[in-house]
Amino acid sequence: MGQNIYLSNYELKDAISTYFEKLNIKKEFEELNTEDCNGRVTCEPIYSLISSPFYNCSAMDGIALKAESTIGASEKHHIELKEDKDYIVVDTGDPIPKEYDCVVMVEDLIRTGDKSVKIYKSAVSWQNIRPLGEDIVQNSLIIPSNHKIRPVDIGAMLAGGVNKVKVYKKPVVGIIPTGTELVDPGSELKIGDIIDFNSRVFAAQVEDFGGKAKRYPIVKDDYNLIKNTVLTAVEECDIVLINAGSSAGREDFTSEVINEVGQVFIHGVAIKPGKPVIMGQVQQKPVIGIPGYPVSAYFVMENIVKNLVEKYIALGQKPLKVEKAILSRRVMSSLKYHEFVRMKLGYVGDKLIATPLSRGAGATMSLVRADGILEVDQSIEGIEAGEKIDVKLLKDKDDIKNTIVCIGSHDPIIDVLADLIHVREKGYFLSSAHVGSMGGIMSLIKGETHLAPIHLLDMETGEYNISYIKKYLSNKNIKLIKCVKRIQGLMVQKGNPLGISSMEDIVKKKLKFVNRQRGAGTRLLFDYNLKKLNIKEEEIQGYEREEFTHLSVAAAVASGDADCGLGVYSAAKLMNLDFIPICNEEYDLAIPEEYLELDIIKELLQVIKSEEFLKEIDKLGGYDYSDIGTVI
Amino acid sequence: MGQNIYLSNYELKDAISTYFEKLNIKKEFEELNTEDCNGRVTCEPIYSLISSPFYNCSAMDGIALKAESTIGASEKHHIELKEDKDYIVVDTGDPIPKEYDCVVMVEDLIRTGDKSVKIYKSAVSWQNIRPLGEDIVQNSLIIPSNHKIRPVDIGAMLAGGVNKVKVYKKPVVGIIPTGTELVDPGSELKIGDIIDFNSRVFAAQVEDFGGKAKRYPIVKDDYNLIKNTVLTAVEECDIVLINAGSSAGREDFTSEVINEVGQVFIHGVAIKPGKPVIMGQVQQKPVIGIPGYPVSAYFVMENIVKNLVEKYIALGQKPLKVEKAILSRRVMSSLKYHEFVRMKLGYVGDKLIATPLSRGAGATMSLVRADGILEVDQSIEGIEAGEKIDVKLLKDKDDIKNTIVCIGSHDPIIDVLADLIHVREKGYFLSSAHVGSMGGIMSLIKGETHLAPIHLLDMETGEYNISYIKKYLSNKNIKLIKCVKRIQGLMVQKGNPLGISSMEDIVKKKLKFVNRQRGAGTRLLFDYNLKKLNIKEEEIQGYEREEFTHLSVAAAVASGDADCGLGVYSAAKLMNLDFIPICNEEYDLAIPEEYLELDIIKELLQVIKSEEFLKEIDKLGGYDYSDIGTVI
Repeated sequence: MGQNIYLSNYELKDAISTYFEKLNIKKEFEELNTEDCNGRVTCEPIYSLISSPFYNCSAMDGIALKAESTIGASEKHHIELKEDKDYIVVDTGDPIPKEYDCVVMVEDLIRTGDKSVKIYKSAVSWQNIRPLGEDIVQNSLIIPSNHKIRPVDIGAMLAGGVNKVKVYKKPVVGIIPTGTELVDPGSELKIGDIIDFNSRVFAAQVEDFGGKAKRYPIVKDDYNLIKNTVLTAVEECDIVLINAGSSAGREDFTSEVINEVGQVFIHGVAIKPGKPVIMGQVQQKPVIGIPGYPVSAYFVMENIVKNLVEKYIALGQKPLKVEKAILSRRVMSSLKYHEFVRMKLGYVGDKLIATPLSRGAGATMSLVRADGILEVDQSIEGIEAGEKIDVKLLKDKDDIKNTIVCIGSHDPIIDVLADLIHVREKGYFLSSAHVGSMGGIMSLIKGETHLAPIHLLDMETGEYNISYIKKYLSNKNIKLIKCVKRIQGLMVQKGNPLGISSMEDIVKKKLKFVNRQRGAGTRLLFDYNLKKLNIKEEEIQGYEREEFTHLSVAAAVASGDADCGLGVYSAAKLMNLDFIPICNEEYDLAIPEEYLELDIIKELLQVIKSEEFLKEIDKLGGYDYSDIGTVI
Repeated sequence: MGQNIYLSNYELKDAISTYFEKLNIKKEFEELNTEDCNGRVTCEPIYSLISSPFYNCSAMDGIALKAESTIGASEKHHIELKEDKDYIVVDTGDPIPKEYDCVVMVEDLIRTGDKSVKIYKSAVSWQNIRPLGEDIVQNSLIIPSNHKIRPVDIGAMLAGGVNKVKVYKKPVVGIIPTGTELVDPGSELKIGDIIDFNSRVFAAQVEDFGGKAKRYPIVKDDYNLIKNTVLTAVEECDIVLINAGSSAGREDFTSEVINEVGQVFIHGVAIKPGKPVIMGQVQQKPVIGIPGYPVSAYFVMENIVKNLVEKYIALGQKPLKVEKAILSRRVMSSLKYHEFVRMKLGYVGDKLIATPLSRGAGATMSLVRADGILEVDQSIEGIEAGEKIDVKLLKDKDDIKNTIVCIGSHDPIIDVLADLIHVREKGYFLSSAHVGSMGGIMSLIKGETHLAPIHLLDMETGEYNISYIKKYLSNKNIKLIKCVKRIQGLMVQKGNPLGISSMEDIVKKKLKFVNRQRGAGTRLLFDYNLKKLNIKEEEIQGYEREEFTHLSVAAAVASGDADCGLGVYSAAKLMNLDFIPICNEEYDLAIPEEYLELDIIKELLQVIKSEEFLKEIDKLGGYDYSDIGTVI
């Protein structure tokens, strides 16, 4: 093998079955105290060793007696019985001596003395007795093999006298982070460093899959160091993961190492992200090369490593739940790959709307934000907006139902809102996508959002928001929830070293500007001001550089990539920048009237009027919230 | 308070809200390394501390250069560039120095020397650059408060420079088992002992709820010992559970203790099982008295303690999924209680059929076997067979779909079958209810089972099974899967001390007999033989004592409660009894023809013909399986 299998294009299914066939997976087991095996998987059927109860016992508080001593008792003919001669007193659970065969409960007794009672009903054999084995009979099956043990199973096993259980040993999964540029979290960072978070994510995933993670220290990009670590790891672990970067140079390394000390079976699977995965074996242990981009790594972990770990503990694959959803935006895909697209989901009206998230393989946040996965088959080139699709759910359906979908313009107060809504113990969520004010209007038109934060300046009248709603959403009954007035201005380096004082300075001083994306309210505001000042786009250096949020613009300025950008005061403050105010604007929430009746929206209205929320936005600074919560 | 609140009848909902209002729940938090907080819950919003990437970096392998140096490049007009003067070589992820503003990927370069390349396309600023903050912008929200941390969240937090996270401290839940009759699992058992498995089940449940369990040693029924243990536990824990027996005497004890050192708020909730729960507080810590019967305890844990634990970690209640099902048998309920009925579920045809399981509060196995819970409201006296009901699922819907429902006669080979079907890695289950052969026929008539194991002797012809199917199931197309011929006989004490040699001896020697329930094939066989021998029921001592399985009968004989009973050889062997053969009989599986096409049934047919299965039934002994798997 070797170069000839370099970046093959196996289908995922075929890759997995080919790989698993070549592997020689040895399930091992260990014997644990029954009480310590919650969540573990049985590797043999568990039969009871004793019966439960293991003696006949009383099901009631009362007296144990012989049924024959009650013959003839009636309301008219009471029979008197003597303790120790005719009966003994028993509590629930007490054993019934062999000489007695039934129990009369205390409510049916008339006490006639310290040691005597009268009864007024005859009893039958076995009445009120829990016979030996009533719950569990000796030698009967309690739970089968390959069963994930639950608390109730522990109870039944202990009741059945089973004090030790053989369960599958959790496979130890070694995780080797490689890369000269990698540093551990908490290290002092310098340009060029990459924080090794992948190996920590893998460790958490492995534990969730049912394995035991063993993380090795970072290994520099050195063939022999990597080889030696792999050799140590295959000694100490059942499965080994090597996390190489996805650059060609480094991948060759991993694949070469595995090929030297073992075999590479597959290098390259037709999935995106995740293509350059390596599946091999060293000393009869599976060794997998995981691509470095976090999103690629995630899909390889969930689709291949999970499968493998579960083989060791005989857990069947639990596929993710699938729901039908309506795609809100076109998704294009290559015929070369089976593609995994992360989706934002929300019930808007009674439709489940799926909106694709960022598809970059480096977009960690797209995994955090994703509610579901759309898998686009290799044979499909694209799916049109409006089509019904199958989405695999990453979140509970009920949680998705309790999520406010908020698509539109970004402001830091949306983050605060998202947090406060979730703090209240109603299980509600706010999930936002930052596509600018016009993007928000478009989402309202398509019915893919509950509400859209907007700040759209009418270039003619100078009025905010209302004319846009009238123009674009005239056929819908849209209300505007007044939110905040905020100050927009130029964000500049701390101390304003370039002495910027107005928008004209961008041209005069030939400043590097960073812009917002088309459709953003802030972009419109910028263009409006350029027009007023008679400045042309071409005169602005960096006009074409587009960022999607105020914070991104502020970050570009803070890092020195740009000299200034237009944005809100709070973003400048968060990034410790100086701020030159340009104007006030109105940032409101546009919402179809029908949604005002939803519980999640009512909650939102409460939250934005709450003291907590106003306190938080005071901390951010630069907001006037005198009208907040007014619906117009 | 005190006696006057003894066994109140609060509705569950009211009890919980009343109790929680009186409690003063203090959520505590702890700071953990981010990588150690998988599954924990944030107690504050997590904002990124740095951007990710935190510098502009290359998205490709290639060269970093100035876009302006490429102006005019085309297929016709190549531009030559020199390393270090015009460009530097970059790998994916490498930082872009300030003097460069774009990346041209290696595929678009023509190498002209060691240190020079030609390009044939002009580039634009920011092309192939991942700008600072592309994934995560500094100060933006990564996850909100009250969020259960997943592996992907760990990745995003570490990427965002968040190396420590404040999460809610898991509440420590003290568990105090009380009872003089309690012994630890593994102790040598004597009559009257009760194995303390409850406290172990509670511990596992508490961990599943998200708490930390602390189990105390068994405390004898001594007021002061219990009091002192409670006082120690409230010092050491956040919540304390006292597991008293459900007998009146002992419960008074727990309630008295709590009342002396704290307060009892509620004693008695209108739920069944679970009524005698005690909710109180000692030194501002919740103290709950849990009933002793395991099933009562289970429902109190799931419905009250879970709720309470989740309060400490701000986890919203995740209610169990509810499905519509058809009730196969009438369920009666008292107007005094909100009742929890454990249900066996199965998809038979496309209907979800729900069959109530044993309702005894001591029936641990009913919890193990339950697939769902039917809650019967306090205002309802009963639900008729055939009605549509809401069932709360304890198992995944897909697992229920993969379950073969098998209702009918019991034989130990059914346990073996259930195990072997689950061992195969298809995720199939076999779930059986032992209601006797006639019960199985009834279930087929009602369509509540996939198949029914039967051994029904035609008293007229001496033929097995076929005539019954013709008589009772003439309107259905039923097939018979031949299973085993087995030996029925009298099970007697080891060594046969009473010298039993025939059925006549039961009368002659005045033996204590143990019978099977009405409708069991073995009962019919016994009656058939009595008739042949001209013996009357009344002559048999113990004729009225009914057990539901061969093993239960064998257990009664083994314990000396009975001198003999009729049953199969394998059960006698499992219980180490002697066996006097009476006759051979045919134990077959009746199944509607349409189900033969189901994957789960095809699998079953494969398993019963498999070598493994035959080997296991050889071990049990007494079976002839020459026709096994033949469908007639």
